[in-house]
Amino acid sequence: MNTADLHLPPISRIREGAQAQELARQLQNKLDQKTKPLGALGQLEALAVQLGLIQQSDNVSLKQPQIVVFAGDHGIVDEGVSAYPQAVTVQMVQNMLAPAGKQGGAAVNVLAHQHRFSLTVVDAGVAQILPDHPQLVQMKIAPSTRNCVLAPAMNEIQAAAALHGGMEVVRGLSGNVLALGEMGIGNTSSAALILSLFTPIPVEDCAGRGTGLTDEQMKKKVYALTRAHRRHKDAKKPFDILCAVGGFEIAMMAGAMLQAASERRIVLVDGFISGAAAMIAVGLVPAAKDYMVFCHSGAEHGHKAMLKALAALPLLELGLRLGEGTGALLAWPLIVSSARLLNEMASFESAGVSQKI
Amino acid sequence: MNTADLHLPPISRIREGAQAQELARQLQNKLDQKTKPLGALGQLEALAVQLGLIQQSDNVSLKQPQIVVFAGDHGIVDEGVSAYPQAVTVQMVQNMLAPAGKQGGAAVNVLAHQHRFSLTVVDAGVAQILPDHPQLVQMKIAPSTRNCVLAPAMNEIQAAAALHGGMEVVRGLSGNVLALGEMGIGNTSSAALILSLFTPIPVEDCAGRGTGLTDEQMKKKVYALTRAHRRHKDAKKPFDILCAVGGFEIAMMAGAMLQAASERRIVLVDGFISGAAAMIAVGLVPAAKDYMVFCHSGAEHGHKAMLKALAALPLLELGLRLGEGTGALLAWPLIVSSARLLNEMASFESAGVSQKI
Repeated sequence: MNTADLHLPPISRIREGAQAQELARQLQNKLDQKTKPLGALGQLEALAVQLGLIQQSDNVSLKQPQIVVFAGDHGIVDEGVSAYPQAVTVQMVQNMLAPAGKQGGAAVNVLAHQHRFSLTVVDAGVAQILPDHPQLVQMKIAPSTRNCVLAPAMNEIQAAAALHGGMEVVRGLSGNVLALGEMGIGNTSSAALILSLFTPIPVEDCAGRGTGLTDEQMKKKVYALTRAHRRHKDAKKPFDILCAVGGFEIAMMAGAMLQAASERRIVLVDGFISGAAAMIAVGLVPAAKDYMVFCHSGAEHGHKAMLKALAALPLLELGLRLGEGTGALLAWPLIVSSARLLNEMASFESAGVSQKI
Repeated sequence: MNTADLHLPPISRIREGAQAQELARQLQNKLDQKTKPLGALGQLEALAVQLGLIQQSDNVSLKQPQIVVFAGDHGIVDEGVSAYPQAVTVQMVQNMLAPAGKQGGAAVNVLAHQHRFSLTVVDAGVAQILPDHPQLVQMKIAPSTRNCVLAPAMNEIQAAAALHGGMEVVRGLSGNVLALGEMGIGNTSSAALILSLFTPIPVEDCAGRGTGLTDEQMKKKVYALTRAHRRHKDAKKPFDILCAVGGFEIAMMAGAMLQAASERRIVLVDGFISGAAAMIAVGLVPAAKDYMVFCHSGAEHGHKAMLKALAALPLLELGLRLGEGTGALLAWPLIVSSARLLNEMASFESAGVSQKI
């Protein structure tokens, strides 16, 4: 399928045009006039400029942040690539969806509550049928992808449907900030394959221990990934890579990222799996990257290489390997700080503070 | 002066004794039973254990967090070691102390407001007289330390008074969390000298560009630090190092850390200057370190070496070089997350989630 046939939303580069360039100068100048040494807020300064350019304003306003967790199962688990049984995908989704008036028990629930994010869970392709729940969007493409060692993970119609599904979910959400998370036993395998097909990095260097493989299990995983890579090595275009080795949740995340960027939302990218979705999204529409804040560098082997391939500088590095969007939520207060420092700090002039000698 | 004559508060090691060891096991077990792969919260897991051990409980409760900013001037600025004039110390203190009903204009004000910290500013030794203000504690030891290139920065009576002053400030504060910050033109010089006297690291490798020195200014700074180091190279004991090259704000921070640890408060250590105060505090009472959370690795050259000397693993690395306690406040939500994840996440059993294969 051609990218044009996918009807992807148009996305503007945030630094393109005289107006954007003038705003970038204004934002940097505003930061430089704050009562602090030049550049003393480090990475938070570049972040503030990015946020301002996304919002086309020298004052950043963050509204009703949303987290969407996409869940899907993976045929490649047949190869013994995960430390946990496939049933954990659906069990963890149910752990996230609490009875009315209660808080879900997953890490994402705790962090979403802490930072007042609204949580939506999407069944992108969980192997079992999930009961309805007010926070659940039923969008199952199929009950699990196919085993990509033996066949393409999904066909083109499924991949396009998943991309469009992710876009549709975002269109219905309020606010101007979108964090993405995922749940899917086996999805570090899918992400590792995406990384290895997008870059020259050998697939064994893209693979990691996921949720905690033993040495022997790790050997199995690398063997499976090597075979899958060999089968799909000719997939070069982002959409073809997605069909070959992607997950339904990864495809939907990519679609969600594209839609969010087209609406000029701030997109919070979580860990290794979300990063694979970002590679697909940026592969399809490069401008999408301008809207992404890369939230953390995780413990999964290959994540550093992935961030390098994306030319991304993450905010946190805490040895996380949980997914669910937890790294994105943990980084959120830094984004708030960056915006508040831009908006609220005094300038040298207004505070009567002397400048450099 | 002998350490015994300083009347420092007694501090218990948080892992000492059968009860503490049993609690450490309980805390780790509680984390391991949460619905996540083993160790998947990375650094936040060790942090949760530390918080539990500090509070002697398997449930962490964070109450009325406080930030205290200690301000002081440094005689060594006579050597041209700073990019900003000495007057900036008092100007920035006034920037932090807003008229009633308004928010101060410094970065620390913005972040304290964001995270609901109460802010206290202490005049430990600012060169000018500050007008009274409800958030200001007047505790000036002297208007600036002496130039430590030519003489000890302070005498023993001053150093002891500053340590005790810091302790006194903390005794009056509510809550169980203390973040420390500082303001003092020239204080990266003092911190670099403290680091170089505590470790075998050559003083030129401890020095950095502070608030933004040019190459030529940097040469001046290194020259001044080399001379100061030569004068004081025989200072080996923490208290002697403090007298030789310390700042009044650094001495008070060290005292504040000791008092906070003796009351089992969680101590948030900010950047390079706070780290120097931590070196003094831990040098005086090693158990103090158990209560410290090292919040960030800053841009100041020497900070990484300092953290290594303290065997500290910081939470953030964002290229900050601002001080004021900003790095401590930026890291705060991670500490809250760590506590909440420990307290609130479901266990495999309670959520009905399958464990490893």
